[in-house]
Amino acid sequence: MPVHVTPFSTLAVIGVGLIGGSIALAAKSCGIVTRVLGLGRKQTRLDAAVRAGVIDEGSTKWEQVATADLIVVCTPVDRIVQDVMTVTDLLGKDSSALITDVGSTKEKICESIAAHEKEGALYIGSHPLAGSEQSGWEHAAADLFINRTCVLTPDETIPEEAIARLERFWQALGMQTVRMSSADHDQALARTSHLPHVVASALVSVLLESDMRLVSTGFRDTTRIAGGDPSIWLPIFLENADAIVAAMDRLDARLGELRQALKRKDRSQIEGFLAQAKARREKFEF
Amino acid sequence: MPVHVTPFSTLAVIGVGLIGGSIALAAKSCGIVTRVLGLGRKQTRLDAAVRAGVIDEGSTKWEQVATADLIVVCTPVDRIVQDVMTVTDLLGKDSSALITDVGSTKEKICESIAAHEKEGALYIGSHPLAGSEQSGWEHAAADLFINRTCVLTPDETIPEEAIARLERFWQALGMQTVRMSSADHDQALARTSHLPHVVASALVSVLLESDMRLVSTGFRDTTRIAGGDPSIWLPIFLENADAIVAAMDRLDARLGELRQALKRKDRSQIEGFLAQAKARREKFEF
Repeated sequence: MPVHVTPFSTLAVIGVGLIGGSIALAAKSCGIVTRVLGLGRKQTRLDAAVRAGVIDEGSTKWEQVATADLIVVCTPVDRIVQDVMTVTDLLGKDSSALITDVGSTKEKICESIAAHEKEGALYIGSHPLAGSEQSGWEHAAADLFINRTCVLTPDETIPEEAIARLERFWQALGMQTVRMSSADHDQALARTSHLPHVVASALVSVLLESDMRLVSTGFRDTTRIAGGDPSIWLPIFLENADAIVAAMDRLDARLGELRQALKRKDRSQIEGFLAQAKARREKFEF
Repeated sequence: MPVHVTPFSTLAVIGVGLIGGSIALAAKSCGIVTRVLGLGRKQTRLDAAVRAGVIDEGSTKWEQVATADLIVVCTPVDRIVQDVMTVTDLLGKDSSALITDVGSTKEKICESIAAHEKEGALYIGSHPLAGSEQSGWEHAAADLFINRTCVLTPDETIPEEAIARLERFWQALGMQTVRMSSADHDQALARTSHLPHVVASALVSVLLESDMRLVSTGFRDTTRIAGGDPSIWLPIFLENADAIVAAMDRLDARLGELRQALKRKDRSQIEGFLAQAKARREKFEF
C-alpha cells in the first residue's frame, strides 16, 4: 500500500496580499503543505494575518525562507525578479527547494531570472488566472483558485519532475494547469486580461458627471476591474506594453468596422457583429 | 382616515419577456396593481406564463387591452411606436389610461408618437435601467428594479398629474425616477449602456481560439453583456447609431492617449490613467 507523502512541507509566501493570502489559505485547507510562512515588509500586518489564521507564521526576516521547500513570490511584477534572486541567495546553492511566482507577465521576468544562472533552488514561472479588484489578505479566499487555470512557463532547462511537482501544487488548489512559453503567455494575456482592464478603465472615463446616475448592472460588471489597484497594474502595463498595444490594435480594428456599419446604419453588418459576439461569449464556461 | 386607493387596477404588459415578466411580478407583489394582463404573439408561451404565476391572464387578442388603465409596452425598440399606436386605437379617444414603454432609446420613439397627436390615452416614455443578458419570462424576477433608476421622458404637453402617477408606479417597484428629455437620455445611454455593449462584444471578438482557456473572472464580467440577445440590441444600435458613434469617439480619444503612453512607456501618464479610472469607478454605488 503506498504511503501518502505530502509533496511539500513548508510553503513560504512572499507578499501576503489577496493572492498570497489566498494561496496560503488554499494550500493549508487542501493539505498540500503542513506549514505556511508569510514574509513581508510590515510586521504588524503579518501578525494580524497570523491572528486571522491566514498564515502560520509571519516575518519580515526573509532568512527564514531557508526553512521552506516551496516559495511563492506574490509581489508586484516589477519586484519579482529581485525577490526571486534574494530568495535564491538565501536558500543557498545546495537547496532543492522550488521557487515560483504569480506575476501577470512572464517573459521579462523569466528571461531575467534565467540570465542570472544561479545554482540551487529551481525557479519556474507561474500565473494563476484568479484574482479580484480588491486587495489585501482580508479579502483572501481559499476557494479563489477552484476551476481556474494556472499557466506555467518553465524554462527548457527545468527537469520534468520539478515541473510536475509544481503542477501538483496548483492542481491541489483546484486549478487546471497549462504549460506555454513566457512569450506566448504575455501575448495571450494582453488580449484576455490586460486589454479588458484597459477598456474597463477607459469606459469609466468616458462618462460625464451627469451620466453617473444613469448606469445599470451592465456598466457595473463591464467596469468592475477598473477598481483594481494601480500599484499592481502599472508594472503589468509597463512590462507588457508592446503586447497590450498589439491587442489594442486588434480591438481598434473591430471597433472601426462597427463604427462604419453604424454610420451607414448597415443592419446586416451590425447584426453580424452582435450575433458573432454572442455566439463566442456563449462558448466560454466560467 | 384616508381610504387606501390602488393607483392602478389592471396593468397590461405588451410583450411578456424578461422585462415585461419582471414588471408583472414586481407590480403584483408590491400591490400597485390588482390584475396583470399579458399580451403577446404566442398563446402557448402566454399560457405557460400564466401557469408559472408571472401574469394573471395571457392573450394574443390585444382588444383586451381596453380593460387596462396602465399599459407598459415591452417590445423591442423598433416595434414600440407601432405597438403604442395600436394600443391607443384600441383604447379609444375617451380613454384615461396611461401608456408607457421600456425602450432603451427614447428620442425617435417619443417624437414619432408625439407626431401622431391622437386623442385618448396619454403616452409617456420610460426606461427602467434594469435588465440582464438573459431573455424570456423564465428569467423574470420581482426584485429586478429595486434600487435601480427609471428615466421618464415626458413630452411638454403631458399634465404633471399623469407624470407623477407614472412615477408612483415605478417607485412602487423600488426604483428612483429621473425626468429628462428624450434626446439627453439617448446621448447619456449611448455612453452608459450602449458603449459598454459595443466594447464587451468587440473584446470577445479580439480573442484567438487558443486564448479561450486563458480567461478569468475579469474577462467574464467585462464581457457578460455581450451574451445579450441581438434581436433586442440591433434595433437599439440602429436607432441610436449617431450617439453611439459619438460615444465611441470619446472612448477612442481615451484609448489613443493610453496607446501613446504605452508606446513611450510613460510611467506617470499610465499611472494617471489607472488611478483616475479607479477613483471614478469607486464613486459609483451599485
